[in-house]
Amino acid sequence: MKEIILYDASLREGAQEAGASYTVEDKLRILQMLDDLGVQYVEGGNPGSNPKDEAFFARVREIKRKQTRLVAFGSTCRAGAAPAEDANVQALLRARTDTVAIFGKCWDFHATEILHIDLEQNLDLIHDTVRYLKQQGKEVIFDAEHFFDGYKNNPVYAVQAIQAAEQAGADWLALCDTNGACFPHEVEAIVQSVRAQTHAPLGIHTHNDTGMANANVIAAVREGATMVQLTLNGIGERCGNANLWTCVPNLQLKLGYHCIPEANMKRLYACAHAFEDIANYNHNPKEPYVGKNAFAHKAGMHIDAVKKASKSFEHIPPESVGATRRVLVSEQAGRNAILERARMIDPSLTKESPQTQQILDRMKEMEFEGYQFEQADASFELLVRRITGKYHPFFTLKDFRVVVEEPSPQGRNAYAMIEVEVGEETEITAAMGNGPVNALDRAARKALERFYPELKQMYLSDYKVRVLDSEKTTSSVVRVVIESRDTQEHWTTVGVSGDVIQASWIALVDSLEYKLLKDTKKA
Amino acid sequence: MKEIILYDASLREGAQEAGASYTVEDKLRILQMLDDLGVQYVEGGNPGSNPKDEAFFARVREIKRKQTRLVAFGSTCRAGAAPAEDANVQALLRARTDTVAIFGKCWDFHATEILHIDLEQNLDLIHDTVRYLKQQGKEVIFDAEHFFDGYKNNPVYAVQAIQAAEQAGADWLALCDTNGACFPHEVEAIVQSVRAQTHAPLGIHTHNDTGMANANVIAAVREGATMVQLTLNGIGERCGNANLWTCVPNLQLKLGYHCIPEANMKRLYACAHAFEDIANYNHNPKEPYVGKNAFAHKAGMHIDAVKKASKSFEHIPPESVGATRRVLVSEQAGRNAILERARMIDPSLTKESPQTQQILDRMKEMEFEGYQFEQADASFELLVRRITGKYHPFFTLKDFRVVVEEPSPQGRNAYAMIEVEVGEETEITAAMGNGPVNALDRAARKALERFYPELKQMYLSDYKVRVLDSEKTTSSVVRVVIESRDTQEHWTTVGVSGDVIQASWIALVDSLEYKLLKDTKKA
Repeated sequence: MKEIILYDASLREGAQEAGASYTVEDKLRILQMLDDLGVQYVEGGNPGSNPKDEAFFARVREIKRKQTRLVAFGSTCRAGAAPAEDANVQALLRARTDTVAIFGKCWDFHATEILHIDLEQNLDLIHDTVRYLKQQGKEVIFDAEHFFDGYKNNPVYAVQAIQAAEQAGADWLALCDTNGACFPHEVEAIVQSVRAQTHAPLGIHTHNDTGMANANVIAAVREGATMVQLTLNGIGERCGNANLWTCVPNLQLKLGYHCIPEANMKRLYACAHAFEDIANYNHNPKEPYVGKNAFAHKAGMHIDAVKKASKSFEHIPPESVGATRRVLVSEQAGRNAILERARMIDPSLTKESPQTQQILDRMKEMEFEGYQFEQADASFELLVRRITGKYHPFFTLKDFRVVVEEPSPQGRNAYAMIEVEVGEETEITAAMGNGPVNALDRAARKALERFYPELKQMYLSDYKVRVLDSEKTTSSVVRVVIESRDTQEHWTTVGVSGDVIQASWIALVDSLEYKLLKDTKKA
Repeated sequence: MKEIILYDASLREGAQEAGASYTVEDKLRILQMLDDLGVQYVEGGNPGSNPKDEAFFARVREIKRKQTRLVAFGSTCRAGAAPAEDANVQALLRARTDTVAIFGKCWDFHATEILHIDLEQNLDLIHDTVRYLKQQGKEVIFDAEHFFDGYKNNPVYAVQAIQAAEQAGADWLALCDTNGACFPHEVEAIVQSVRAQTHAPLGIHTHNDTGMANANVIAAVREGATMVQLTLNGIGERCGNANLWTCVPNLQLKLGYHCIPEANMKRLYACAHAFEDIANYNHNPKEPYVGKNAFAHKAGMHIDAVKKASKSFEHIPPESVGATRRVLVSEQAGRNAILERARMIDPSLTKESPQTQQILDRMKEMEFEGYQFEQADASFELLVRRITGKYHPFFTLKDFRVVVEEPSPQGRNAYAMIEVEVGEETEITAAMGNGPVNALDRAARKALERFYPELKQMYLSDYKVRVLDSEKTTSSVVRVVIESRDTQEHWTTVGVSGDVIQASWIALVDSLEYKLLKDTKKA
């Protein structure tokens, strides 16, 4: 099996994505995760252009790493300055990493029209910078910026640029499709030609502007590139970069290459979701391998087929990347799929049970109102239990009232009063909060914790509001989805209403009920 | 230039995506858009499996089409039934389309293990169904389900399956990578081999489970496939399908094929966003060509370079698909980029103006609180104007109070009282609403419309809430982003607070102010 070296650029290039920003703490956690996973190189930042990155390189020594080599990223020195006097190059050295990556211009047009230097001078900058860094004892990765566009425009010069780096001792030549403009057949031909003209090991760095980032990685690897530069979730400027969660399984599960220890393949799904939590990154449910929908089936016929044989509509067993199959509960799923899920809750249900029909009818009604149970497993379970009688309400809301005032008298501008009934007892209480939903959440817990102290273990981990009809926005129907966690699991509930408070309340009640229910099951 | 025939499957296959559901009205609007764009075939639905789709085919005759051929989709008839008696095939005929697409099994394993029929019998089903539909005068597209997986497992049988369709008169053989398991080099080799063994024109239908959907389209087209099956936004089951917004520009702007009238290329961006509105589909900002970030630049060095020459960091001129370049205002953008955007608002600003420093400082402060101006152009403009003095407040909030009650006495459970000052006058008023934000929105307009009747033209077109710190959710900081429209434009504003009502109010005020401001500029 051929060995592939992974080079993750999430911490530097990823931060150039619109909306992305990491704290130093975030970066350390991500580095730790990549090290655990077995990624060989991690680009830590650009110390010359970003003061936050300098702080990161200072703190990174706190982290014990098993194998990952940390890389400081920068550029060739500026025209006119010797590397020893160039501020950027010196910042690279101050990062005190064993490995540095520097990018240099390989597209003739960039040298003459953007840097305004002549072509020879650009080759000298590349050569001199690499040689200087080698003299300082560094492992040097030369990132051949715009290599493919450069090659298309002037193949002789593009190759001269990487040869300049090679002759100065560069350890790696990473060919970059900086603008994401290349197609796999082009990458194939160009890497082939480069292989014939260079000796240093090759890397590939792709962007997704034509949707080819992951395909171009494969094209280059098949032609002999052994280092793959990529990012978590493909995070990166514009349309992003090659995606680690896609490329690693493609290469390792399907194409016979070895990237990370085999045992870690099953951790990919969990790591992808952990990264999203750390980076506060919106999950793309359609992401290959690690998206929530990657192994989700909705059409009744497909659901029936995967039950007979997984490979009928799944290109790999979901478990091989730590994912699980999801059977979506929706109109299209058909009676069978819904029944199957309902039977996981109440095995006594059959096709003919009148309750099965009631469940289907109630779901249809609620979907019409705007509910979606595809994501909200906990709310679906409660719905089934409410119909089958396998449920007793833990509490009943009598009423609530929320007041929001602005200007707010003392920071907390909302007050909630709530009355709940637990068994024979009634509890009335009130709480203040930041905003009405928070006030209500606090008041409900305050009222209930006397009866159910286990509610202290849970917290709401995500709260999303989706407007369902966008033409009269603030008065239209909203769907609130709440994700909750305790120390053992996390679960999702949903509420729909014309009013965001009411929708939040419905989802909140389901979440509290589900927590109490699952603890009862265990007890 | 070689002609490519587009076949859009969004209305049928797209509906199999988790979370997707269209009304008949939605489907008609999408069909109209595809017809306007110049898409040659549109798959309308599966009348045999979905009653909603039957309703669509009945109503579709109301729509005048310029060129798009409507396709009814179904499967080969069931084993044991003649096509004339098969319910699914008969439903196809009742849809009264000129063209039908039927899928049939091409992977031997699917025939024997999923359908439980023998291999010969499966070939007969394909042949008989196609022949019957041809006898009914239909144009027939044979969707060769699982063709690539089938070919890898048993190349002789997979080719026999499509030959059975061809011999029965199929007009098109569409080769499907149903599980999305194929790589471009495999597609290339397999299509080449099929071309040598068949005569009917070939189509390609790909899925994105390995991130290859769009690359595989190119591989097949380069080997002679002339029909490309795809969907809007790549909507589809699991990881989705090939994406029209990616494939059309790839083929037409870069690879020398002709798909749609040249003049329509510039409409792609607007159509992509219109589709998202209709389908209530989450925008993926990293989508090639049509994503909000596809031509967005954040790194200072890139911003400087694209200003010198667009091609330095843009693979096509954004205008060629109707997109525009975005320079992101953020810490990383650097002083220059922010200055440039600020100068579009106030050309008198220079690098040295003390106000430039104030703008940068204020932005930094607000970004620290959780604001993001990358998306919120209108709020950024107001921020600049507030600092440069090119702004007079149109109104001042004195205070508001909102009460939410449950159970709600009459459907509308929220009341807002508001006091605003306009010039010398004070207006106090109140309104009811569905929830506190809606009540507040109504009350504010009611108070202000007396002074500014133009506010009647605008409405809020989107309203998003993002929780910024997910560990103590309902009390954490939230960012509210409001998108507003009038008949001419749409604009985005942002508010951040510990309280969703307060954050909404900040964004709402910016939105109203921006509307009044831009109307003043025009006057």
